[in-house]
Amino acid sequence: MKKGRLIVISGPSGVGKGTVVKALRERDPNVKLSVSATTREIRPGEIDGVHYYFITHEKFEQMIAEDRFLEHAQYVGNRYGTPAAPVNRMLEEGYDVILEIEVQGGLQVLERRPDAISVFIAAPSFEVLGARLRGRGDTDEEKVLMRLQQARMEYLVAKRYQYIVVNDRLEDAVADLQAILRAEALKTEHQEHLLKEDD
Amino acid sequence: MKKGRLIVISGPSGVGKGTVVKALRERDPNVKLSVSATTREIRPGEIDGVHYYFITHEKFEQMIAEDRFLEHAQYVGNRYGTPAAPVNRMLEEGYDVILEIEVQGGLQVLERRPDAISVFIAAPSFEVLGARLRGRGDTDEEKVLMRLQQARMEYLVAKRYQYIVVNDRLEDAVADLQAILRAEALKTEHQEHLLKEDD
Repeated sequence: MKKGRLIVISGPSGVGKGTVVKALRERDPNVKLSVSATTREIRPGEIDGVHYYFITHEKFEQMIAEDRFLEHAQYVGNRYGTPAAPVNRMLEEGYDVILEIEVQGGLQVLERRPDAISVFIAAPSFEVLGARLRGRGDTDEEKVLMRLQQARMEYLVAKRYQYIVVNDRLEDAVADLQAILRAEALKTEHQEHLLKEDD
Repeated sequence: MKKGRLIVISGPSGVGKGTVVKALRERDPNVKLSVSATTREIRPGEIDGVHYYFITHEKFEQMIAEDRFLEHAQYVGNRYGTPAAPVNRMLEEGYDVILEIEVQGGLQVLERRPDAISVFIAAPSFEVLGARLRGRGDTDEEKVLMRLQQARMEYLVAKRYQYIVVNDRLEDAVADLQAILRAEALKTEHQEHLLKEDD
């Protein structure tokens, strides 16, 4: 069976990564989403193994020591990481697997897996990003400014991603992602078997 | 205005390059087709400047001497070449320009214009290619076998193209080309301006 592709998707808080990825998955049943592990407390409504694998600090440290993460990072006192085993299993089963992660973790994955497809989702502008963050209604102005500052840092490393998709209209952003996945499969390195006559 | 992209499309005789390109152009008005120059005789129904620029051997030699071709090649005693000027004009006007040419010329273009997008159109199999060549009705078996031999040579250099599209169902091949053009525009090198806040 043909192995799936690893897809790293990053972008600033408020850009709508989750919505874009959800819409892509609805359209392409061959795309699966990786589940992260975290040491933070489970919140009401969250399901272990669906939203996150909720694990202890000790377990997290042990998994780092055993090199069982594709990437891991610290965020507001808690740890987050992508366990490699479930991702590798889905890839072996032929699924494309999306890691929807922060740039800090994204770059770690790109170092380890240079064959991964990497997409940075950008906002149409910082004004729009600010408006979207404010529109959520659950963040105060100071937090909005902190997230915009964070976005500026993320944009500085975004050029290490292969593709940049602007999430202006959701439909366009999803079609962009679909075009990227389709075109990547057509790259000669993945198609050379077609040039052999004995196939 | 945003400059257009140069697109080199090659593939064996009988694979249906022309049909795929025609269908792509019908769907994407931003795509133009380059017109080649040739020294061969004009045939009934052909229009100078539309099917080819029909020029003399002397003129052809002069254009080579003045480095006015993107590529040129000899085929069955006649010369064929892509004049650079009209292509550059269309690119400046923002059109994507397709060169539908033999691999011999295609590789010359890729050397001169490493930024070109290159797509090799392959047949689903040699059996299918043979059947298509025979189905044209205008070629005898010896010519079919010569074209298949020619195709084998072309497949050997096809790996120097960036993408390989199989022309099995026309609709799929056209959608493949559209995905390639869309994804290429999303590459970070073409999108970096989006990462600057002052835009």
